[in-house]
Amino acid sequence: MKMTFSALDTSESSFTPLVVIELAQDVKEETKEWLKNRIIAKKKDGDNNDDFLTMAECQFIIKHELENLRAKDEKMIPGYPQAKLYPGKSLLRRLLTSGIVIQVFPLHDSEALKKLEDTWYTRFAFKYQPIDSIRGYFGETIALYFGFLEYFTFALIPMAVIGLPYYLFVWEDYDKYVIFASFNLIWSTVILEVWKRGCANMTYRWGTLLMKRKFEEPRPGFHGVLGINSITGKEEPLYPSYKRQLRIYLVSLPFVCLCLYFSLYVMMIYFDMEVWALGLHENSESEWTSVLLYVPSIIYAIVIEIMNRLYRYAAEFLTSWENHRLESAYQNHLILKVLVFNFLNCFASLFYIAFVLKDMKLLRQSLATLLITSQILNQIMESFLPYWLQRKHGVRVKRKLQALKADIDAALYEQVILEKEMGTYLGTFDDYLELFLQFGYVSLFSCVYPLAAAFAVLNNFTEVNSDALKMCRVFKRPFSEPSANIGVWQLAFETMSVISVVTNCALIGMSPQVNSVFPESKADLILIVVAVEHALLALKFILAFAIPDKPRHIQMKLARLEFESLEALKQQQMKLVTENLKEEPKESGKEKAT
Amino acid sequence: MKMTFSALDTSESSFTPLVVIELAQDVKEETKEWLKNRIIAKKKDGDNNDDFLTMAECQFIIKHELENLRAKDEKMIPGYPQAKLYPGKSLLRRLLTSGIVIQVFPLHDSEALKKLEDTWYTRFAFKYQPIDSIRGYFGETIALYFGFLEYFTFALIPMAVIGLPYYLFVWEDYDKYVIFASFNLIWSTVILEVWKRGCANMTYRWGTLLMKRKFEEPRPGFHGVLGINSITGKEEPLYPSYKRQLRIYLVSLPFVCLCLYFSLYVMMIYFDMEVWALGLHENSESEWTSVLLYVPSIIYAIVIEIMNRLYRYAAEFLTSWENHRLESAYQNHLILKVLVFNFLNCFASLFYIAFVLKDMKLLRQSLATLLITSQILNQIMESFLPYWLQRKHGVRVKRKLQALKADIDAALYEQVILEKEMGTYLGTFDDYLELFLQFGYVSLFSCVYPLAAAFAVLNNFTEVNSDALKMCRVFKRPFSEPSANIGVWQLAFETMSVISVVTNCALIGMSPQVNSVFPESKADLILIVVAVEHALLALKFILAFAIPDKPRHIQMKLARLEFESLEALKQQQMKLVTENLKEEPKESGKEKAT
Repeated sequence: MKMTFSALDTSESSFTPLVVIELAQDVKEETKEWLKNRIIAKKKDGDNNDDFLTMAECQFIIKHELENLRAKDEKMIPGYPQAKLYPGKSLLRRLLTSGIVIQVFPLHDSEALKKLEDTWYTRFAFKYQPIDSIRGYFGETIALYFGFLEYFTFALIPMAVIGLPYYLFVWEDYDKYVIFASFNLIWSTVILEVWKRGCANMTYRWGTLLMKRKFEEPRPGFHGVLGINSITGKEEPLYPSYKRQLRIYLVSLPFVCLCLYFSLYVMMIYFDMEVWALGLHENSESEWTSVLLYVPSIIYAIVIEIMNRLYRYAAEFLTSWENHRLESAYQNHLILKVLVFNFLNCFASLFYIAFVLKDMKLLRQSLATLLITSQILNQIMESFLPYWLQRKHGVRVKRKLQALKADIDAALYEQVILEKEMGTYLGTFDDYLELFLQFGYVSLFSCVYPLAAAFAVLNNFTEVNSDALKMCRVFKRPFSEPSANIGVWQLAFETMSVISVVTNCALIGMSPQVNSVFPESKADLILIVVAVEHALLALKFILAFAIPDKPRHIQMKLARLEFESLEALKQQQMKLVTENLKEEPKESGKEKAT
Repeated sequence: MKMTFSALDTSESSFTPLVVIELAQDVKEETKEWLKNRIIAKKKDGDNNDDFLTMAECQFIIKHELENLRAKDEKMIPGYPQAKLYPGKSLLRRLLTSGIVIQVFPLHDSEALKKLEDTWYTRFAFKYQPIDSIRGYFGETIALYFGFLEYFTFALIPMAVIGLPYYLFVWEDYDKYVIFASFNLIWSTVILEVWKRGCANMTYRWGTLLMKRKFEEPRPGFHGVLGINSITGKEEPLYPSYKRQLRIYLVSLPFVCLCLYFSLYVMMIYFDMEVWALGLHENSESEWTSVLLYVPSIIYAIVIEIMNRLYRYAAEFLTSWENHRLESAYQNHLILKVLVFNFLNCFASLFYIAFVLKDMKLLRQSLATLLITSQILNQIMESFLPYWLQRKHGVRVKRKLQALKADIDAALYEQVILEKEMGTYLGTFDDYLELFLQFGYVSLFSCVYPLAAAFAVLNNFTEVNSDALKMCRVFKRPFSEPSANIGVWQLAFETMSVISVVTNCALIGMSPQVNSVFPESKADLILIVVAVEHALLALKFILAFAIPDKPRHIQMKLARLEFESLEALKQQQMKLVTENLKEEPKESGKEKAT
């Protein structure tokens, strides 16, 4: 048999399987036996947690317990002398790195999933997502992503609604434009601040708002020479910091710069193509050549997507090779690398068109093509393609199973076979990145192309559904992760909105309508634009500072919680003092003597 | 007799008095008796804390204990039926507001003070201050101020050293200027970031780095209708938030605006005086009239100082009248009011000269006069005047005492009489404000007057000594307050350094030397200046983000602390589980039945 299910070994009747451990095909019997004993030994005092914990939380706990199965006196994995162990080493990590365990994943609960899908995306209607049910099934991190996606979509609606008439009627009216751009700026600040409050609201309800970062263990991929950790005093692999710095500054940094240069090089090729297409169109003004005008942008958009995806793999490889000890450091370095490249790759051509070529018509056309193409590509690549592959695979498995006529619990067996071949959801990184780039397209050049927000809203309404489909049907169920907020993405979105203030002010200052007001003195115009920009930036920071991060009623509840815990502490201390006083008389003589 | 010393009542031999409670002259005997009993009842189980706690900490604890003497079943203060009490009301606050207790203050320890003074300021030498001894004697908040003052002075030295040759030799050389200004900007960012690290270092050593904000009680001056606090569930005065908002927006805000307008009006009078003095000088070019040129600036500097001080009282009165429930809210509103006014009052004329009159010669002259006059005035008003008054008073008291020939412990009696008449130190607010304004003078227009840093350094070297004299000899010893950092001042200094980037870039862009490089296109010049400014601001934020707030070794120690506390928690939980397991067998039948 290809697999061992410890779940199938149990004899309880109403047993709901939660997590699957897939072992390699040729694992030795003694290894299986040892692993089973180690897991059972740990889980002997099992809890009864039907209602107390959500299913996602149970699976998170199982994952945590599995990752914390640690070597005691074993020197190696039984049956695999080459898979060395030392006291404290996580067994699961060694099993995974030795290729004995192929993967560990939680199972879907088809009944709960069906219920979730019904309220979530199958019946098409304009309604809120069942965020609390999503949290119950997938955990806080994924629920927060869907919460943010929904919030962001609704927040874009006013921009889309206000942008439409600008596109349809008053395209060339600069004074109304300034109003639109100012609204846009303040709006983008306010939505980010209000999100913080909404997020605090949600995570307070879920109990993760005050979640403390747990003490971090080294990440699975971290390797080094065995030594004594000066913090924990335990033996673990150590890797000198200067070596990591050398790798970062001598290899990663030059590589990233090279990639950025390559991206700019590709951009210049795109501009050559533009010139060529324009020349062709001007020579023979036909229907056919006017369509051709859009071809370079579409090709460039596709190339950008491909480059982003390729770079993503390279960045992951490099950051992993930098050998960071902590998962958080790894994530920070990865996100920084990816964000810088993606930002330049997606927006460099637009900045070049706007501020070097100063061709607003081309900017509008290029922005529209990039935005729409990347949205279509993303929807296809992310959801429908995997869904189609998945369906095909599902049919194949079912046919095979019917031929087998397996005598064990067929439904469960079929489910495991089906799900183990599903793709693995790699976290919310790519989803947030997509929203981040979309936010860039919408906000950076919003005053040139006010329709962008409308397209983004349209895309996001389908994105909610395709992402939901992806989570429920395309990927293996991911392990849930608790989280208190969207973390570094809040900072990324805020930075983007600062950059958008600068670019929008510059665009308005460059518009011929504004220039015609100051025909003789360009310097005065620039001074006024710069003054307005500084005022807007100052307003932005004051707003960000003045709007409290937590709504008042959450603040009150937290204050109450703090007060109650302090009171409890006080009472406990009083009790201790009283007990000490009772005991003291016996020892008072002794005390005085010392 | 005018006073009751509970200290003098005690019969212990080696007793060191720590805190004085000054009662009103006509307090009834029964009130004294009751108060003494209440204090003693609380302090019956006194600790032996000779070495364990610093003297400042002992005094802080006594203050805390006194403030937490709360009414139980008393309906009023015995002997004073009009001084009502309700359960939970702080006795000390009621005693102070009823005028029964005049003041509570800690006594100086003349021996320790002498030792401290010897290492601190009496022997003039360029050496570091004994920050740890200052912390031991005055507490963390004051020690942090002196630490910041010293750090800031040393941090200004490179700016002063680099500024000197610019003043002496290459005054008109714009390209070197750009270098000086850029250095200045990066320097001002770096020193503020490095201070955070130094501060973390100090407060880690003192054990206050991880200090948690304690649950705040209503501030003494807060009044309102008795009601149930929804957080604590206790009866206490409540004041509706909308009433406070009304007071803030309908009274305080218009008043502040009026003051700002008045300050600008005074500024315009100053400019009229300047024009008048210049006219007089041009009519009769004599020695006498060239001195007269400086008179308007000097008068204006004195008027600014007077307005700042008057406004300070008004702001305190208004903020107190706004009736904030928490001391922190009160402080934030006060600091905001005072900072905005002081900033405008001190710098508006300089901004006007720089960007409206565009008269760099007048700017330099005005800046120099304002800086130097305000420094001299501050030194006189803050330290030497009170010191002189204090000395005169001391001689008078001694003469009186010799006439009295008091038979009780004369030295202690004399000390208390002397110290109770000393001024009260109102906290570090004014000292930080002075440094903040100085930082403004030095950084905002540094490229016009590079000598400013040198004057600031000179001033600060004497400021250390005069502030030390003030703390040790002029004021009553203040109660110590623990603190983890310099709080809102960090933000204020950082904001100032952002503003200084903008003004310095604008000044460089306006200089005739830079303008002569772009003779035909002023617009190009402005664009370049704006681009440089944006790049510097971006660099500033990246620097602030990239420099960790805590030094690596502190991070390591904190991580170790966190690890150890988590380990201890784990062991405690393990113990509980083991105990539960031992008890379980007896109840196992019962458990299964439920």
